[in-house]
Amino acid sequence: MRLALLGGTGDIGEGLAVRFARDTDHEILIGSRDPEKARDAVAAYEDDLESRGVEADINGFGNEMAADRADVVVLSVPPYYAGDTVEAVADALDSETILVTPAVGMQGDEDGMHYHPPGAGSVTELVAQRAPEEVPIVGAYHNLAAGKLADLDVSFDLDTLVVADDADAKRTVLDLSNEIDGLRALDAGPLANAAEVESVTPLVINIATYNDDLHDVGVKWV
Amino acid sequence: MRLALLGGTGDIGEGLAVRFARDTDHEILIGSRDPEKARDAVAAYEDDLESRGVEADINGFGNEMAADRADVVVLSVPPYYAGDTVEAVADALDSETILVTPAVGMQGDEDGMHYHPPGAGSVTELVAQRAPEEVPIVGAYHNLAAGKLADLDVSFDLDTLVVADDADAKRTVLDLSNEIDGLRALDAGPLANAAEVESVTPLVINIATYNDDLHDVGVKWV
Repeated sequence: MRLALLGGTGDIGEGLAVRFARDTDHEILIGSRDPEKARDAVAAYEDDLESRGVEADINGFGNEMAADRADVVVLSVPPYYAGDTVEAVADALDSETILVTPAVGMQGDEDGMHYHPPGAGSVTELVAQRAPEEVPIVGAYHNLAAGKLADLDVSFDLDTLVVADDADAKRTVLDLSNEIDGLRALDAGPLANAAEVESVTPLVINIATYNDDLHDVGVKWV
Repeated sequence: MRLALLGGTGDIGEGLAVRFARDTDHEILIGSRDPEKARDAVAAYEDDLESRGVEADINGFGNEMAADRADVVVLSVPPYYAGDTVEAVADALDSETILVTPAVGMQGDEDGMHYHPPGAGSVTELVAQRAPEEVPIVGAYHNLAAGKLADLDVSFDLDTLVVADDADAKRTVLDLSNEIDGLRALDAGPLANAAEVESVTPLVINIATYNDDLHDVGVKWV
Protein backbone atom coordinates (compact mmCIF):
# COMPACT_ATOMS: atom_id res chain seq x y z
CA MET A 1 0.00 0.00 0.00
CA ARG A 2 1.14 3.56 -0.66
CA LEU A 3 0.78 5.91 2.28
CA ALA A 4 1.17 9.69 1.83
CA LEU A 5 1.80 11.98 4.77
CA LEU A 6 0.85 15.49 3.71
CA GLY A 7 2.61 18.04 5.86
CA GLY A 8 4.89 15.11 6.55
CA THR A 9 7.87 17.30 7.35
CA GLY A 10 6.77 18.14 10.86
CA ASP A 11 4.67 17.35 13.91
CA ILE A 12 2.74 14.09 13.78
CA GLY A 13 3.75 13.50 10.14
CA GLU A 14 7.38 12.80 10.98
CA GLY A 15 6.44 10.31 13.69
CA LEU A 16 4.01 8.41 11.47
CA ALA A 17 6.54 8.40 8.61
CA VAL A 18 9.39 6.86 10.57
CA ARG A 19 7.15 4.39 12.45
CA PHE A 20 5.39 3.19 9.29
CA ALA A 21 8.76 3.01 7.49
CA ARG A 22 10.36 0.99 10.28
CA ASP A 23 7.46 -1.30 11.20
CA THR A 24 5.69 -1.99 7.89
CA ASP A 25 6.40 -2.77 4.26
CA HIS A 26 4.26 0.04 2.90
CA GLU A 27 5.70 2.68 0.62
CA ILE A 28 5.86 6.03 2.37
CA LEU A 29 5.41 9.32 0.51
CA ILE A 30 6.20 12.59 2.26
CA GLY A 31 4.21 15.56 0.99
CA SER A 32 4.91 19.21 1.59
CA ARG A 33 3.77 22.44 -0.03
CA ASP A 34 7.45 22.76 -1.01
CA PRO A 35 8.69 19.53 -2.68
CA GLU A 36 12.29 20.48 -1.82
CA LYS A 37 11.37 20.56 1.87
CA ALA A 38 9.76 17.14 1.50
CA ARG A 39 12.92 15.70 -0.02
CA ASP A 40 15.09 17.21 2.75
CA ALA A 41 12.82 15.62 5.35
CA VAL A 42 13.03 12.27 3.56
CA ALA A 43 16.84 12.44 3.69
CA ALA A 44 16.73 13.09 7.44
CA TYR A 45 14.23 10.28 8.08
CA GLU A 46 16.26 7.85 5.97
CA ASP A 47 19.43 8.77 7.89
CA ASP A 48 17.65 8.14 11.19
CA LEU A 49 16.30 4.80 9.98
CA GLU A 50 19.61 3.73 8.39
CA SER A 51 21.43 4.38 11.68
CA ARG A 52 19.06 1.73 13.11
CA GLY A 53 19.71 -0.73 10.30
CA VAL A 54 16.41 -0.03 8.55
CA GLU A 55 16.46 0.47 4.80
CA ALA A 56 13.37 2.55 4.15
CA ASP A 57 11.39 3.24 1.01
CA ILE A 58 10.44 6.92 1.41
CA ASN A 59 10.00 9.57 -1.27
CA GLY A 60 9.30 13.28 -1.13
CA PHE A 61 6.84 15.24 -3.30
CA GLY A 62 4.60 18.27 -3.35
CA ASN A 63 1.38 17.58 -1.43
CA GLU A 64 -0.77 17.11 -4.53
CA MET A 65 1.58 14.65 -6.20
CA ALA A 66 1.99 12.68 -2.96
CA ALA A 67 -1.80 12.50 -2.59
CA ASP A 68 -2.23 11.48 -6.23
CA ARG A 69 0.09 8.50 -5.87
CA ALA A 70 -1.25 7.23 -2.54
CA ASP A 71 -3.92 4.77 -1.44
CA VAL A 72 -4.10 6.34 2.01
CA VAL A 73 -3.48 10.06 2.54
CA VAL A 74 -2.83 11.35 6.07
CA LEU A 75 -3.55 15.05 6.46
CA SER A 76 -0.84 15.71 9.06
CA VAL A 77 -1.08 19.48 8.92
CA PRO A 78 -2.04 21.97 11.67
CA PRO A 79 -5.83 22.21 12.20
CA TYR A 80 -6.12 25.70 10.71
CA TYR A 81 -4.60 24.43 7.42
CA ALA A 82 -6.59 21.20 7.28
CA GLY A 83 -9.55 22.49 5.24
CA ASP A 84 -7.40 24.46 2.78
CA THR A 85 -4.98 21.57 2.31
CA VAL A 86 -7.86 19.23 1.46
CA GLU A 87 -9.10 21.66 -1.16
CA ALA A 88 -5.60 22.13 -2.56
CA VAL A 89 -5.23 18.39 -3.20
CA ALA A 90 -8.90 17.68 -4.02
CA ASP A 91 -8.19 16.80 -7.66
CA ALA A 92 -5.83 14.06 -6.50
CA LEU A 93 -8.46 12.43 -4.28
CA ASP A 94 -11.21 10.02 -5.33
CA SER A 95 -13.36 7.22 -3.97
CA GLU A 96 -10.33 4.91 -3.99
CA THR A 97 -8.23 7.20 -1.80
CA ILE A 98 -8.76 7.09 1.96
CA LEU A 99 -8.22 10.49 3.58
CA VAL A 100 -7.11 10.27 7.21
CA THR A 101 -7.23 13.31 9.49
CA PRO A 102 -5.47 13.54 12.88
CA ALA A 103 -5.87 17.32 13.47
CA VAL A 104 -7.53 18.76 16.59
CA GLY A 105 -8.68 22.32 17.33
CA MET A 106 -7.42 23.58 20.69
CA GLN A 107 -6.99 26.84 22.55
CA GLY A 108 -4.78 27.38 25.57
CA ASP A 109 -5.15 29.72 28.54
CA GLU A 110 -3.52 30.02 31.96
CA ASP A 111 -5.32 26.88 33.18
CA GLY A 112 -4.41 24.57 30.36
CA MET A 113 -5.48 23.47 26.90
CA HIS A 114 -9.14 23.40 25.98
CA TYR A 115 -10.98 21.69 23.19
CA HIS A 116 -12.03 24.26 20.61
CA PRO A 117 -13.79 22.58 17.69
CA PRO A 118 -14.79 24.38 14.50
CA GLY A 119 -18.45 24.93 13.63
CA ALA A 120 -18.54 21.55 11.88
CA GLY A 121 -18.37 19.94 15.36
CA SER A 122 -14.81 18.62 15.00
CA VAL A 123 -11.85 19.10 12.69
CA THR A 124 -12.49 15.56 11.46
CA GLU A 125 -16.00 16.53 10.33
CA LEU A 126 -14.68 19.82 8.87
CA VAL A 127 -12.29 17.81 6.70
CA ALA A 128 -15.20 15.60 5.61
CA GLN A 129 -17.19 18.71 4.62
CA ARG A 130 -14.32 20.19 2.61
CA ALA A 131 -13.28 16.98 0.80
CA PRO A 132 -14.96 15.78 -2.42
CA GLU A 133 -18.08 13.84 -1.46
CA GLU A 134 -16.90 10.46 -2.77
CA VAL A 135 -13.68 10.43 -0.72
CA PRO A 136 -13.87 8.16 2.34
CA ILE A 137 -12.80 10.13 5.44
CA VAL A 138 -11.24 8.54 8.52
CA GLY A 139 -10.26 10.24 11.77
CA ALA A 140 -7.23 8.69 13.50
CA TYR A 141 -4.00 9.48 15.37
CA HIS A 142 -5.56 12.49 17.15
CA ASN A 143 -4.16 11.72 20.60
CA LEU A 144 -0.62 10.57 19.85
CA ALA A 145 2.22 12.71 21.18
CA ALA A 146 4.29 13.79 18.18
CA GLY A 147 7.57 13.84 20.09
CA LYS A 148 7.20 10.30 21.39
CA LEU A 149 6.12 9.04 17.98
CA ALA A 150 9.08 10.60 16.16
CA ASP A 151 11.67 9.29 18.63
CA LEU A 152 12.37 5.72 17.52
CA ASP A 153 14.31 5.12 20.74
CA VAL A 154 10.93 5.17 22.51
CA SER A 155 8.95 1.94 22.69
CA PHE A 156 5.33 2.49 23.59
CA ASP A 157 2.11 0.62 24.26
CA LEU A 158 -0.59 3.04 23.17
CA ASP A 159 -4.05 3.12 21.66
CA THR A 160 -5.37 5.27 18.85
CA LEU A 161 -9.09 5.73 18.19
CA VAL A 162 -10.51 5.52 14.68
CA VAL A 163 -13.78 7.10 13.49
CA ALA A 164 -15.32 6.80 10.03
CA ASP A 165 -18.67 6.42 8.29
CA ASP A 166 -17.22 4.16 5.57
CA ALA A 167 -16.78 0.67 7.06
CA ASP A 168 -14.18 -0.50 4.53
CA ALA A 169 -12.03 2.60 4.91
CA LYS A 170 -12.26 2.30 8.68
CA ARG A 171 -11.19 -1.36 8.55
CA THR A 172 -8.23 -0.47 6.32
CA VAL A 173 -7.01 2.23 8.71
CA LEU A 174 -7.58 0.04 11.78
CA ASP A 175 -5.50 -2.74 10.21
CA LEU A 176 -2.83 -0.36 8.93
CA SER A 177 -2.47 1.30 12.32
CA ASN A 178 -2.19 -2.01 14.13
CA GLU A 179 0.93 -2.70 12.06
CA ILE A 180 2.86 -0.06 14.01
CA ASP A 181 4.68 -1.75 16.89
CA GLY A 182 3.01 -0.99 20.22
CA LEU A 183 0.03 0.76 18.69
CA ARG A 184 -3.49 -0.65 19.05
CA ALA A 185 -6.25 0.90 16.96
CA LEU A 186 -9.79 0.85 18.36
CA ASP A 187 -13.09 1.71 16.69
CA ALA A 188 -14.81 4.78 18.20
CA GLY A 189 -17.76 4.74 15.80
CA PRO A 190 -18.81 7.11 13.01
CA LEU A 191 -17.45 10.59 12.21
CA ALA A 192 -20.15 12.09 14.45
CA ASN A 193 -18.21 10.71 17.43
CA ALA A 194 -15.00 12.54 16.48
CA ALA A 195 -15.40 15.43 18.94
CA GLU A 196 -15.08 13.18 21.98
CA VAL A 197 -11.98 11.59 20.44
CA GLU A 198 -10.37 14.92 19.56
CA SER A 199 -10.99 16.40 23.00
CA VAL A 200 -8.64 13.85 24.54
CA THR A 201 -5.75 15.77 22.95
CA PRO A 202 -6.00 18.91 25.12
CA LEU A 203 -6.58 16.56 28.05
CA VAL A 204 -3.33 14.63 27.56
CA ILE A 205 -1.50 17.95 27.35
CA ASN A 206 -3.10 19.02 30.66
CA ILE A 207 -2.18 15.71 32.29
CA ALA A 208 1.41 16.15 31.08
CA THR A 209 1.45 19.68 32.49
CA TYR A 210 0.14 18.83 35.95
CA ASN A 211 1.95 15.53 36.62
CA ASP A 212 5.68 14.92 36.82
CA ASP A 213 6.95 12.04 34.68
CA LEU A 214 3.96 12.12 32.34
CA HIS A 215 5.60 14.18 29.60
CA ASP A 216 4.25 13.19 26.16
CA VAL A 217 1.62 11.04 27.85
CA GLY A 218 -0.72 8.88 25.79
CA VAL A 219 -3.71 6.69 26.46
CA LYS A 220 -4.69 3.03 26.86
CA TRP A 221 -8.36 2.02 27.05
CA VAL A 222 -8.43 -0.89 29.47
CA MET B 1 -11.78 10.54 57.64
CA ARG B 2 -15.53 10.50 57.13
CA LEU B 3 -16.64 10.09 53.55
CA ALA B 4 -20.27 10.66 52.52
CA LEU B 5 -21.65 9.35 49.25
CA LEU B 6 -24.81 11.31 48.47
CA GLY B 7 -27.00 9.37 46.10
CA GLY B 8 -24.92 6.49 47.36
CA THR B 9 -27.62 3.93 46.72
CA GLY B 10 -26.98 3.66 43.00
CA ASP B 11 -24.66 4.11 40.07
CA ILE B 12 -21.14 5.28 40.91
CA GLY B 13 -22.04 5.75 44.60
CA GLU B 14 -22.34 2.03 45.24
CA GLY B 15 -18.99 1.30 43.60
CA LEU B 16 -17.16 3.99 45.55
CA ALA B 17 -18.85 2.89 48.80
CA VAL B 18 -17.82 -0.76 48.58
CA ARG B 19 -14.31 0.01 47.26
CA PHE B 20 -13.60 2.63 49.95
CA ALA B 21 -15.08 0.31 52.59
CA ARG B 22 -12.98 -2.63 51.48
CA ASP B 23 -9.69 -0.86 50.72
CA THR B 24 -9.48 1.93 53.32
CA ASP B 25 -10.11 2.59 57.02
CA HIS B 26 -12.35 5.60 56.40
CA GLU B 27 -15.86 5.74 57.76
CA ILE B 28 -18.38 5.54 54.93
CA LEU B 29 -21.74 7.33 55.09
CA ILE B 30 -24.39 6.55 52.50
CA GLY B 31 -26.76 9.41 51.79
CA SER B 32 -30.09 9.25 50.02
CA ARG B 33 -33.10 11.55 49.77
CA ASP B 34 -34.88 8.72 51.60
CA PRO B 35 -32.91 7.64 54.72
CA GLU B 36 -34.68 4.27 54.68
CA LYS B 37 -33.34 3.63 51.18
CA ALA B 38 -29.85 4.56 52.39
CA ARG B 39 -30.06 2.05 55.25
CA ASP B 40 -31.30 -0.69 52.88
CA ALA B 41 -28.33 -0.02 50.59
CA VAL B 42 -25.96 -0.14 53.55
CA ALA B 43 -27.32 -3.56 54.52
CA ALA B 44 -26.75 -4.84 50.98
CA TYR B 45 -23.21 -3.41 50.81
CA GLU B 46 -22.34 -4.86 54.21
CA ASP B 47 -23.63 -8.29 53.14
CA ASP B 48 -21.49 -8.14 49.99
CA LEU B 49 -18.42 -7.10 51.98
CA GLU B 50 -19.03 -9.63 54.78
CA SER B 51 -19.21 -12.44 52.21
CA ARG B 52 -15.65 -11.43 51.33
CA GLY B 53 -14.51 -11.35 54.93
CA VAL B 54 -14.55 -7.56 55.18
CA GLU B 55 -16.15 -6.00 58.22
CA ALA B 56 -17.19 -2.57 57.04
CA ASP B 57 -18.11 0.59 58.90
CA ILE B 58 -20.96 2.00 56.79
CA ASN B 59 -24.01 3.97 57.91
CA GLY B 60 -27.06 5.28 56.07
CA PHE B 61 -28.65 8.72 56.42
CA GLY B 62 -30.64 11.33 54.60
CA ASN B 63 -28.40 13.30 52.24
CA GLU B 64 -28.21 16.38 54.47
CA MET B 65 -27.27 14.48 57.61
CA ALA B 66 -24.68 12.43 55.71
CA ALA B 67 -23.15 15.64 54.32
CA ASP B 68 -23.21 17.29 57.75
CA ARG B 69 -21.18 14.48 59.33
CA ALA B 70 -18.60 14.10 56.57
CA ASP B 71 -15.18 15.57 55.79
CA VAL B 72 -15.49 14.66 52.13
CA VAL B 73 -18.86 14.60 50.36
CA VAL B 74 -19.16 12.86 46.98
CA LEU B 75 -22.13 14.04 44.95
CA SER B 76 -22.81 10.72 43.25
CA VAL B 77 -26.16 11.70 41.78
CA PRO B 78 -27.25 11.92 38.13
CA PRO B 79 -26.07 15.17 36.43
CA TYR B 80 -29.56 16.70 36.23
CA TYR B 81 -29.91 16.40 40.03
CA ALA B 82 -26.39 17.64 40.85
CA GLY B 83 -27.21 21.35 41.22
CA ASP B 84 -30.42 20.79 43.18
CA THR B 85 -28.77 18.27 45.48
CA VAL B 86 -25.98 20.72 46.29
CA GLU B 87 -28.54 23.37 47.21
CA ALA B 88 -30.53 20.87 49.29
CA VAL B 89 -27.49 20.09 51.44
CA ALA B 90 -25.89 23.57 51.32
CA ASP B 91 -26.44 24.22 55.05
CA ALA B 92 -24.42 21.12 55.87
CA LEU B 93 -21.42 22.26 53.81
CA ASP B 94 -18.67 24.67 54.85
CA SER B 95 -15.05 25.52 54.16
CA GLU B 96 -13.96 22.36 56.01
CA THR B 97 -16.07 20.04 53.84
CA ILE B 98 -14.66 18.99 50.48
CA LEU B 99 -17.39 18.52 47.88
CA VAL B 100 -16.45 16.02 45.15
CA THR B 101 -18.45 15.80 41.92
CA PRO B 102 -18.22 12.90 39.44
CA ALA B 103 -21.28 13.76 37.28
CA VAL B 104 -21.10 14.28 33.51
CA GLY B 105 -23.67 15.68 31.07
CA MET B 106 -24.21 13.46 28.06
CA GLN B 107 -26.71 12.94 25.28
CA GLY B 108 -27.00 9.87 23.11
CA ASP B 109 -28.09 9.47 19.49
CA GLU B 110 -27.88 6.71 16.91
CA ASP B 111 -24.11 7.21 16.56
CA GLY B 112 -23.19 7.07 20.22
CA MET B 113 -22.89 9.20 23.32
CA HIS B 114 -21.90 12.84 23.05
CA TYR B 115 -20.60 15.28 25.60
CA HIS B 116 -23.34 17.74 26.47
CA PRO B 117 -22.14 20.17 29.14
CA PRO B 118 -24.37 22.70 30.87
CA GLY B 119 -23.93 26.44 30.31
CA ALA B 120 -21.39 26.56 33.14
CA GLY B 121 -18.97 24.70 30.82
CA SER B 122 -19.06 21.40 32.74
CA VAL B 123 -21.17 19.76 35.44
CA THR B 124 -18.16 20.16 37.74
CA GLU B 125 -18.22 23.93 37.28
CA LEU B 126 -22.03 23.97 37.60
CA VAL B 127 -21.68 22.33 41.02
CA ALA B 128 -19.08 24.94 41.98
CA GLN B 129 -21.50 27.71 40.98
CA ARG B 130 -24.37 26.23 42.99
CA ALA B 131 -22.39 25.42 46.15
CA PRO B 132 -21.72 27.97 48.92
CA GLU B 133 -18.67 29.99 47.93
CA GLU B 134 -16.43 28.82 50.75
CA VAL B 135 -16.83 25.11 49.97
CA PRO B 136 -13.82 23.62 48.17
CA ILE B 137 -14.99 21.80 45.03
CA VAL B 138 -13.15 18.86 43.48
CA GLY B 139 -14.02 17.01 40.26
CA ALA B 140 -13.11 13.29 40.31
CA TYR B 141 -14.29 9.79 39.35
CA HIS B 142 -15.96 11.07 36.14
CA ASN B 143 -14.71 8.29 33.91
CA LEU B 144 -15.05 5.19 36.07
CA ALA B 145 -17.51 2.54 34.89
CA ALA B 146 -20.06 2.11 37.68
CA GLY B 147 -20.61 -1.60 37.00
CA LYS B 148 -16.93 -2.48 37.18
CA LEU B 149 -16.45 -0.38 40.31
CA ALA B 150 -19.37 -2.00 42.14
CA ASP B 151 -18.31 -5.56 41.32
CA LEU B 152 -15.68 -6.44 43.92
CA ASP B 153 -14.80 -9.57 41.95
CA VAL B 154 -13.21 -7.26 39.38
CA SER B 155 -9.61 -6.19 39.92
CA PHE B 156 -8.64 -3.20 37.83
CA ASP B 157 -5.72 -0.95 37.05
CA LEU B 158 -7.33 2.39 36.21
CA ASP B 159 -6.72 6.10 36.45
CA THR B 160 -9.04 8.82 37.62
CA LEU B 161 -8.45 12.50 36.90
CA VAL B 162 -8.85 15.15 39.58
CA VAL B 163 -9.55 18.85 38.99
CA ALA B 164 -9.80 21.57 41.63
CA ASP B 165 -8.90 25.18 42.28
CA ASP B 166 -8.17 24.56 45.97
CA ALA B 167 -4.75 22.88 46.22
CA ASP B 168 -5.30 21.34 49.67
CA ALA B 169 -8.67 19.88 48.74
CA LYS B 170 -7.19 18.50 45.54
CA ARG B 171 -4.31 16.89 47.44
CA THR B 172 -6.74 15.30 49.90
CA VAL B 173 -8.84 13.78 47.12
CA LEU B 174 -5.77 12.62 45.17
CA ASP B 175 -4.44 10.85 48.28
CA LEU B 176 -7.84 9.45 49.23
CA SER B 177 -8.42 8.09 45.72
CA ASN B 178 -5.00 6.47 45.58
CA GLU B 179 -6.02 4.36 48.59
CA ILE B 180 -8.43 2.37 46.41
CA ASP B 181 -6.64 -0.74 45.15
CA GLY B 182 -5.78 -0.45 41.47
CA LEU B 183 -6.84 3.18 41.18
CA ARG B 184 -4.31 5.92 40.39
CA ALA B 185 -5.41 9.53 40.75
CA LEU B 186 -3.81 12.13 38.49
CA ASP B 187 -3.99 15.91 38.60
CA ALA B 188 -5.71 17.44 35.54
CA GLY B 189 -5.43 21.03 36.76
CA PRO B 190 -8.05 23.56 37.90
CA LEU B 191 -11.85 23.33 37.61
CA ALA B 192 -11.63 25.14 34.25
CA ASN B 193 -10.13 21.93 32.81
CA ALA B 194 -13.12 19.80 33.86
CA ALA B 195 -14.84 19.72 30.45
CA GLU B 196 -12.00 17.77 28.82
CA VAL B 197 -12.06 15.32 31.73
CA GLU B 198 -15.83 14.88 31.64
CA SER B 199 -15.92 14.33 27.88
CA VAL B 200 -13.94 11.11 28.28
CA THR B 201 -17.09 9.55 29.76
CA PRO B 202 -19.17 9.50 26.54
CA LEU B 203 -15.99 8.39 24.78
CA VAL B 204 -15.47 5.30 26.95
CA ILE B 205 -19.11 4.40 26.35
CA ASN B 206 -18.56 4.70 22.58
CA ILE B 207 -15.41 2.58 22.78
CA ALA B 208 -17.33 -0.06 24.73
CA THR B 209 -20.09 0.02 22.11
CA TYR B 210 -17.85 -0.36 19.06
CA ASN B 211 -15.29 -2.88 20.34
CA ASP B 212 -15.91 -6.43 21.53
CA ASP B 213 -14.40 -7.26 24.91
CA LEU B 214 -14.19 -3.63 26.02
CA HIS B 215 -17.40 -3.60 28.06
CA ASP B 216 -17.12 -1.20 31.03
CA VAL B 217 -13.80 0.07 29.64
CA GLY B 218 -11.70 2.57 31.58
CA VAL B 219 -8.58 4.55 30.97
CA LYS B 220 -4.86 4.55 31.79
CA TRP B 221 -2.72 7.58 30.95
CA VAL B 222 0.64 6.11 29.99
